[in-house]
Amino acid sequence: MFTSTMAGYDRAITVFSPDGKLFQVEYAVSAVKRAPPTIGIKTKEGVALIAKKRMLSKLMEAESVEKVFRIDEHIGAAMAGLYGDARVLVNRAREESQSNRLSFKEPITTLLLTRRLSNLIQLFTQNAGVRPFGVILLIGGIDDSGPSLYMTHPSGAYYGYKAVAVGAESDRINEVLEKKYREDLSLDEAIKLGLNCLKEVDKEELTSENVEIGLIRIKDKKFKKLGREEIGKYLKMVS
Amino acid sequence: MFTSTMAGYDRAITVFSPDGKLFQVEYAVSAVKRAPPTIGIKTKEGVALIAKKRMLSKLMEAESVEKVFRIDEHIGAAMAGLYGDARVLVNRAREESQSNRLSFKEPITTLLLTRRLSNLIQLFTQNAGVRPFGVILLIGGIDDSGPSLYMTHPSGAYYGYKAVAVGAESDRINEVLEKKYREDLSLDEAIKLGLNCLKEVDKEELTSENVEIGLIRIKDKKFKKLGREEIGKYLKMVS
Amino acid sequence: MFTSTMAGYDRAITVFSPDGKLFQVEYAVSAVKRAPPTIGIKTKEGVALIAKKRMLSKLMEAESVEKVFRIDEHIGAAMAGLYGDARVLVNRAREESQSNRLSFKEPITTLLLTRRLSNLIQLFTQNAGVRPFGVILLIGGIDDSGPSLYMTHPSGAYYGYKAVAVGAESDRINEVLEKKYREDLSLDEAIKLGLNCLKEVDKEELTSENVEIGLIRIKDKKFKKLGREEIGKYLKMVS
Amino acid sequence: MFTSTMAGYDRAITVFSPDGKLFQVEYAVSAVKRAPPTIGIKTKEGVALIAKKRMLSKLMEAESVEKVFRIDEHIGAAMAGLYGDARVLVNRAREESQSNRLSFKEPITTLLLTRRLSNLIQLFTQNAGVRPFGVILLIGGIDDSGPSLYMTHPSGAYYGYKAVAVGAESDRINEVLEKKYREDLSLDEAIKLGLNCLKEVDKEELTSENVEIGLIRIKDKKFKKLGREEIGKYLKMVS
Amino acid sequence: MFTSTMAGYDRAITVFSPDGKLFQVEYAVSAVKRAPPTIGIKTKEGVALIAKKRMLSKLMEAESVEKVFRIDEHIGAAMAGLYGDARVLVNRAREESQSNRLSFKEPITTLLLTRRLSNLIQLFTQNAGVRPFGVILLIGGIDDSGPSLYMTHPSGAYYGYKAVAVGAESDRINEVLEKKYREDLSLDEAIKLGLNCLKEVDKEELTSENVEIGLIRIKDKKFKKLGREEIGKYLKMVS
Amino acid sequence: MFTSTMAGYDRAITVFSPDGKLFQVEYAVSAVKRAPPTIGIKTKEGVALIAKKRMLSKLMEAESVEKVFRIDEHIGAAMAGLYGDARVLVNRAREESQSNRLSFKEPITTLLLTRRLSNLIQLFTQNAGVRPFGVILLIGGIDDSGPSLYMTHPSGAYYGYKAVAVGAESDRINEVLEKKYREDLSLDEAIKLGLNCLKEVDKEELTSENVEIGLIRIKDKKFKKLGREEIGKYLKMVS
Amino acid sequence: MFTSTMAGYDRAITVFSPDGKLFQVEYAVSAVKRAPPTIGIKTKEGVALIAKKRMLSKLMEAESVEKVFRIDEHIGAAMAGLYGDARVLVNRAREESQSNRLSFKEPITTLLLTRRLSNLIQLFTQNAGVRPFGVILLIGGIDDSGPSLYMTHPSGAYYGYKAVAVGAESDRINEVLEKKYREDLSLDEAIKLGLNCLKEVDKEELTSENVEIGLIRIKDKKFKKLGREEIGKYLKMVS
Repeated sequence: MFTSTMAGYDRAITVFSPDGKLFQVEYAVSAVKRAPPTIGIKTKEGVALIAKKRMLSKLMEAESVEKVFRIDEHIGAAMAGLYGDARVLVNRAREESQSNRLSFKEPITTLLLTRRLSNLIQLFTQNAGVRPFGVILLIGGIDDSGPSLYMTHPSGAYYGYKAVAVGAESDRINEVLEKKYREDLSLDEAIKLGLNCLKEVDKEELTSENVEIGLIRIKDKKFKKLGREEIGKYLKMVS
Repeated sequence: MFTSTMAGYDRAITVFSPDGKLFQVEYAVSAVKRAPPTIGIKTKEGVALIAKKRMLSKLMEAESVEKVFRIDEHIGAAMAGLYGDARVLVNRAREESQSNRLSFKEPITTLLLTRRLSNLIQLFTQNAGVRPFGVILLIGGIDDSGPSLYMTHPSGAYYGYKAVAVGAESDRINEVLEKKYREDLSLDEAIKLGLNCLKEVDKEELTSENVEIGLIRIKDKKFKKLGREEIGKYLKMVS
Repeated sequence: MFTSTMAGYDRAITVFSPDGKLFQVEYAVSAVKRAPPTIGIKTKEGVALIAKKRMLSKLMEAESVEKVFRIDEHIGAAMAGLYGDARVLVNRAREESQSNRLSFKEPITTLLLTRRLSNLIQLFTQNAGVRPFGVILLIGGIDDSGPSLYMTHPSGAYYGYKAVAVGAESDRINEVLEKKYREDLSLDEAIKLGLNCLKEVDKEELTSENVEIGLIRIKDKKFKKLGREEIGKYLKMVS
Repeated sequence: MFTSTMAGYDRAITVFSPDGKLFQVEYAVSAVKRAPPTIGIKTKEGVALIAKKRMLSKLMEAESVEKVFRIDEHIGAAMAGLYGDARVLVNRAREESQSNRLSFKEPITTLLLTRRLSNLIQLFTQNAGVRPFGVILLIGGIDDSGPSLYMTHPSGAYYGYKAVAVGAESDRINEVLEKKYREDLSLDEAIKLGLNCLKEVDKEELTSENVEIGLIRIKDKKFKKLGREEIGKYLKMVS
Repeated sequence: MFTSTMAGYDRAITVFSPDGKLFQVEYAVSAVKRAPPTIGIKTKEGVALIAKKRMLSKLMEAESVEKVFRIDEHIGAAMAGLYGDARVLVNRAREESQSNRLSFKEPITTLLLTRRLSNLIQLFTQNAGVRPFGVILLIGGIDDSGPSLYMTHPSGAYYGYKAVAVGAESDRINEVLEKKYREDLSLDEAIKLGLNCLKEVDKEELTSENVEIGLIRIKDKKFKKLGREEIGKYLKMVS
Repeated sequence: MFTSTMAGYDRAITVFSPDGKLFQVEYAVSAVKRAPPTIGIKTKEGVALIAKKRMLSKLMEAESVEKVFRIDEHIGAAMAGLYGDARVLVNRAREESQSNRLSFKEPITTLLLTRRLSNLIQLFTQNAGVRPFGVILLIGGIDDSGPSLYMTHPSGAYYGYKAVAVGAESDRINEVLEKKYREDLSLDEAIKLGLNCLKEVDKEELTSENVEIGLIRIKDKKFKKLGREEIGKYLKMVS
Repeated sequence: MFTSTMAGYDRAITVFSPDGKLFQVEYAVSAVKRAPPTIGIKTKEGVALIAKKRMLSKLMEAESVEKVFRIDEHIGAAMAGLYGDARVLVNRAREESQSNRLSFKEPITTLLLTRRLSNLIQLFTQNAGVRPFGVILLIGGIDDSGPSLYMTHPSGAYYGYKAVAVGAESDRINEVLEKKYREDLSLDEAIKLGLNCLKEVDKEELTSENVEIGLIRIKDKKFKKLGREEIGKYLKMVS
């Protein structure tokens, strides 16, 4: 990598390196890796999004920092990376979702929403004067095709997952997920699996303050974020 | 940091460094660190904003330099960093606030105002041809959710706090705040805590000229800036 | 190449090198070479598009990553390279196709569709502020002129083929194709030829998850993507 | 040349070198020189355009790559250089031609068409943000002034010729043309002369697949491209 | 400073240095320091603006170079720095002032005018394609809040002063002002103080040609520029 | 010159060198010097424009390359430099001329036409994103003020001449012209003088193919280009 | 100067050097210094503008190169520097002048005209994508305030003068002017003084061809340019 970066191929989003890389996109992924991890797990019962938050100070208000967002009644998202960049995408997601309801009188599918966001993200990898988004979203929702979980990538690609982690230590968490994930997990077990992963990679104790959980169950198809007490109960189970 | 900055990753807001940093945003934070400290403290009784001002000359008119601003009847803000940049944000804050009253016939919430400003700040971190805002705002207000205190960050992120300091020596002040802050502080005690913090980090004597204080009490929900005499009384209490 | 790249001729799409090369276009081809291979084969019975997908994790949902796309009833496409870039072209292809039906009340020909996409691709090689598309599409369809198979090139050129591979190891696969291709192949034999090529160049076992197949037969002129079972049957035949 | 290119005068179309050169235009000519040769010959009977094509693979469909184009009933063109760039000019040529028929109810003259295209080409040599066209067109047509043959140059100049070759080995072919060309050649003799030139400079055997011929005869004033059989007959004559 | 400037942080207004400086703004201040000094003094009787002019030649017409400007009946300004830049701000000041009279049927306050100009100045510190204003204005006026004196800063900040000097030797003059300024100065004494300061820092003799004086008295609230004779009288008093 | 060019002052039209030069304009003049010479001579009888053309090949059609242009009935122009750039100016000249006839019902004067073109040329020396015109026009015409001959300069200046040469060897030709020119030359003698100058500086034999002559006589005030026979006659006279 | 220029502070108009200089403006002044001198002298009788022209060739038509321009009946201007740049300003001056007559039914004052032009000139020192004007105008006129003489500066400043020279050797001429200028000069004496200055600094003999004189007398307030005979008479007086 030495030569290529020295030669400046990584200074602009509109420049490929000789081996066909877009370094600025790869560096945007590095920005995500600097942030605390976020995990998404899909089961037959629904989708859970679990995010670890970094408390900058004991006096910070945990609730003020959101990593898990309700996009529409039936879709939620969790982010890792730059908060400001995430908000741009979340705002756009809500607009796309509303606009679908207005135009077609029906909720947007999780896949279509993911694709629309990814189209926006791709634009920021091919045009001068901007930088790629330094954020990854995990988008979970339930529609006619059942529960689904997608990951947006700073390159404009997106991928569906049964379970996936992004952010710091995501490689280690993903290894654990690959070992422990079972198709027949209940959503509660999925949440506990996610929390156990977070515990394993981070010395800082998990609390109902530095953990955020959002979930959507197939039985009511409503995405909701858990309150402190609920999070506390899950934490107790994994302690 | 040596290699990265030498390689020029810190010359444009639209360029990530290989380790995923936006150096220009970090340097904007440095611009804030060069300015005298500003403190925000939230208690059950309301929110206090306390700012230290640097007098460039004995003949400077202290009142002419504002670091604490009334945004709307129920919201105020205090800044640290570049005055000119702060004014852009304060002007925008007032417009957002008025526009909310016009459109929805009700005062804007402190959180929504903070988010709107942060959306603007984020734009200045992703588009070529501009630089990030070299200023941090502490926004304090009271709405249906009670008192709240937010800090905008040059990256476009924002954070809620019980108490926080920004600007020169903010690390030392924040340590003190973490030790001394109690949920059951009265607003008067909060102001005294803030002034004591300022005293500790700065040799220059605090006067009713080089200190600005703004506060909003839950009982009347009106943000007001203290006059010289009032500030003088508080200063006497901590001397 | 050393001198030319050192001299910076490869930093912008609007700059020729002294020997008349557009390096950024060549690097876009490198981006395609980094991706798993995609193969198109045309026979008298129709056209088959076969794509190998890289599974980033065992928990990735294979179906979520599309390399083969239905463009219109009578045309499909397969891609190798950047997913986000491919989607831009696929979206445009669908629009061109619909617009042809609306304006002329008849399906677009495969050649005209290819030419329209290539015109767009060329624009991204002559104007500042963008980069070339880091993707190659194989476009297969059936119209009045019979079955046809085209490859778009990041330079804005396009080529018709009887059979062709793009992406990683495409040189080796193309050698095999040149040896084994016969005009009188049945479409089933063509698919088996393609799968055998993929097997030869990649250690990873082919599964109905990491292979995508799309085909259009002259008898019904409908492009369809094969389901897992169908793919499984073909894989069994070549194992 | 060393010093000038080292000093960067060849990095932008809007920069002259100290000795008054536009290097980017000269490099665009180099791009043309990388492509297989194209020949135009004008006789009293009409104009012939003969182009050699490079087959990238035995499985490439020769017909899919066009180097000779019908522009209007009475005008054709042959290209050497970048296919995508050629298509931009050919599309424009067809538009200019149609627009002339619409506005003036008569076919455009070969000279006027050449001049219009060259005006477009010149624009790409004087404005920032683009690169010159990496292609040369030979334009042959018949109008009231009889048969004519023009060559467009990447600088925006154009030249009329009795016979001319562009692309790889064009210097050697032009030498032969200068020796062998006679005013009283029949069009058939002209085609044979062109094919003999191609044979001389290229080891690869000429076939009805890798040669394209377009011609327009004074007797019917209709530009047409020869089919494989017709090309085959001419090839037999020169073998 | 060596490293930072060598590294190019001072080449564009849109780039912060690692320690949070906007070098181009600091260099704009240097442009002001190259110009002869300008002094503003506020007393209970009103405001005086005193400017030293550099005579480029004995044949220059002193009156043709203005450093003190009437903005509106009740406000004046004095500048140090680039004349052309000053004129842009003075023109804008007059427009803002007129526009306030038209919209609100009342004179603009000195503070509001200063803020409006500073907003313009700030824009030139955050957007690419421009440079900061290389000028400082001292703005003096009288409104309902009494006499006031403001200084605009190239960063977009502004400060109120009792007395202040800008331009060459302003540090030395400001030291003298701090020593000699008394709240109960008469406006005449203020002018004499200003002239004495100018005498002290400049060997060149003060004349009614190279000194400009503007003043506004609380008793009539009309800003006026002194004529040569009046200036001559003051000069006699301090000789 | 070494230091200045090394320092990059010659890379952009919008940059002066320390000694006040616009190098890009000077290099545009170099582009003209690379082209075969063009001569203009004014006598009491009218104006003659004589241009030498470089034949790229024996098979080039001499007529296809124009260096002398009829602008309007009473004005002609001859160029040296880049053909494409010349055409831009000639097209504009014809438009200006027509537009004058339309607006004022009278022919444009030679001086006004020259000034309008030079205004366009100047724009290309002061604005970024373009390069200067690499061409010089000699404009000859007859209007109420009699015959006149102007030269446009790439800097946007223009000059009137009795006789002048531009292009290759123009210094030597101008020396000859200064010696041999007499006010009382007939137009025929002027043409012979011009042809003799061309003969002297160029080894290549002058022919009716590689020489172009345009002239306008005061007796009919119609600019016309000479045909081959006419040119042949003049060539015979000077052989 | 070495370090600053080496560091590139002089490459763009939008960049200050560390010591507050705009090098591009200073280099524009160098462009003026390369041109032959132009002198303006104001007396009680009126204003005289005297310009030396450089004859590029004995065959150049002296009249075709104008350095002195009539702007309006009562105002004239003389230039030194780039002819093309001067024409832009002169054209603008005439428009401003006409527009004043149309809007206010009265002639524009010399000062207002000068200020308007200087506002335009200033724009070219603060915005990217252009260069400063490489020209200085001396503007002489008579209005209600009597005769006046102004000099525009490439920085956007302007200065009034009793007498001033710009261009080559202007420093030496200005020294002479300072010595010899008297308030009670007649306009004839002023012209002779100017011509004597030109003689002193330039070896080339002054002739009625290479000198231009424009003047406006208070008695008729009409700016006129002297004809050759009139200039000849003055030249005889100073020989």
